[in-house]
Amino acid sequence: MENTFGGQGFFKDASGTLWLSDPEERFGFRSTWKVNQVLCQVNSAFQEVAVVETEGFGKALVLDGIVQTTEKDGFIYNEMISHIPLATHPHPQDICIIGGGDCGVAREAVKYPSVRNVDMVEIDPVVVEVSRKYLPEVAGEGELDPRVQLHYEDGTLFIRNQSHVYDAVIVDSSDPVGPGAVLFEKDFYEDVYHSLKEDGLMVCQSESPVFHPDVLTRVHQSLKELFPVVRTYLATVPTYPGGIWSFTVASKSYDPLQEGRERLQLKDNRYVNREIFDACFQLPVYVRELLK
Amino acid sequence: MENTFGGQGFFKDASGTLWLSDPEERFGFRSTWKVNQVLCQVNSAFQEVAVVETEGFGKALVLDGIVQTTEKDGFIYNEMISHIPLATHPHPQDICIIGGGDCGVAREAVKYPSVRNVDMVEIDPVVVEVSRKYLPEVAGEGELDPRVQLHYEDGTLFIRNQSHVYDAVIVDSSDPVGPGAVLFEKDFYEDVYHSLKEDGLMVCQSESPVFHPDVLTRVHQSLKELFPVVRTYLATVPTYPGGIWSFTVASKSYDPLQEGRERLQLKDNRYVNREIFDACFQLPVYVRELLK
Repeated sequence: MENTFGGQGFFKDASGTLWLSDPEERFGFRSTWKVNQVLCQVNSAFQEVAVVETEGFGKALVLDGIVQTTEKDGFIYNEMISHIPLATHPHPQDICIIGGGDCGVAREAVKYPSVRNVDMVEIDPVVVEVSRKYLPEVAGEGELDPRVQLHYEDGTLFIRNQSHVYDAVIVDSSDPVGPGAVLFEKDFYEDVYHSLKEDGLMVCQSESPVFHPDVLTRVHQSLKELFPVVRTYLATVPTYPGGIWSFTVASKSYDPLQEGRERLQLKDNRYVNREIFDACFQLPVYVRELLK
Repeated sequence: MENTFGGQGFFKDASGTLWLSDPEERFGFRSTWKVNQVLCQVNSAFQEVAVVETEGFGKALVLDGIVQTTEKDGFIYNEMISHIPLATHPHPQDICIIGGGDCGVAREAVKYPSVRNVDMVEIDPVVVEVSRKYLPEVAGEGELDPRVQLHYEDGTLFIRNQSHVYDAVIVDSSDPVGPGAVLFEKDFYEDVYHSLKEDGLMVCQSESPVFHPDVLTRVHQSLKELFPVVRTYLATVPTYPGGIWSFTVASKSYDPLQEGRERLQLKDNRYVNREIFDACFQLPVYVRELLK
């Protein structure tokens, strides 16, 4: 066996089968994926970027050995982080996506007909390039919608320079370790607050309530100190550790518990429907206790 | 490295750390768990039964190398398969649990004050013994409730001999491979139907909508041919592959979409509350399509 559980996670077993394993143990366990083919593997200025064909989940985007999104279940995360806030706002026109290099969030955002501009701020152009080339099932086929403007910049610096510009800011971040950690800090949320119009709203992925309950609690608390309306919702993303994943929407005005359901865009959705819009905010006991 | 990915799943890495890995690849991937201690490991007449202390999920019951339930998240499955049907029935008195050797379902069932008898039919006494001894966090502390009668028998044979006896039958089965496969067949459901009183209901775990969509579809269809009311609901169990898990309730009379919410027993619950009772029946698009 070569390079078992080492390096960027790829190894072959004795029979020559290729596997991808979490390069570091996370939460006391590792996921190991059977890989039928490596479609692309490059070092960007920021990370090792790969697209592989897995046996269980089809094509997958892999950053530094960690699976980020897959052909089979990428739609769940992308629909949930986009449709819930964009239906909650009655007339979203100007949107900012922080991160989102796989282009899946931008693809969902432009389903809302009122949207006229989407600033997508992704630090690593290689992630965008390989996602568009190898993962059209997530990124969408063909050219990006003309309303989407790509900005290859640090999202925290970009948002700091915007004032009362956006109807919605979608924070599509990676985990709160390394460079992504600042996207979970109150300083960043203050900058997002100021980037929003007076009735704007933001959403972020707020991690696993099972593995990162402290992150969810802290994000929720930080946002409560800034926004009058803060709502946490859940979805299950099979390729994420433990499956269950939280998102938190923070709003200056509109409340998804009061409105939004009827404005959902449903065309081609594979996860979100009107029933899910209501049900996703209903939290089990152990998650509610984290938000008390 | 000893015995990597072989035998019953346990192996040590080069540093001497003990791991447990799925003995067979399932769905193109394997889960690998860091194990701090093996508390018990015995061969029963049916399988290898172990209780280990994992780093991420506390103590875990492991059958033939596959994690069945854990200290940290066992409550989710056990509450969801018990409370939803038992609240739906207005006055459940006589209950049968098929399987359920970890005793977690029986523990939830006796929370319903109308319950007077619980027949728990588990083929392997060793599973019950080690669960009660090593996993009281799942099985409950101390003696079993006196209303619970243990039957160490084949569940399919047991239920075939019952006629109009039960208010609720809870099928707490393992996966539909090997001996557990018959618990997913229509013949078995017909026997369950006949074991129920005229207003009785049953529930079963109907597998992952992501990994076993065919099983969910078939179970739902088979039950629809027998029962007037069939409802599928979801929960996320972090230790199960992909997290998302389905359950299907099939009822001769009562419908959980119409009633039951107010009858939920909530004391000491860590997952089920009244909001979850409603929300768990709201299915995402890709699950709805499986049930068309």
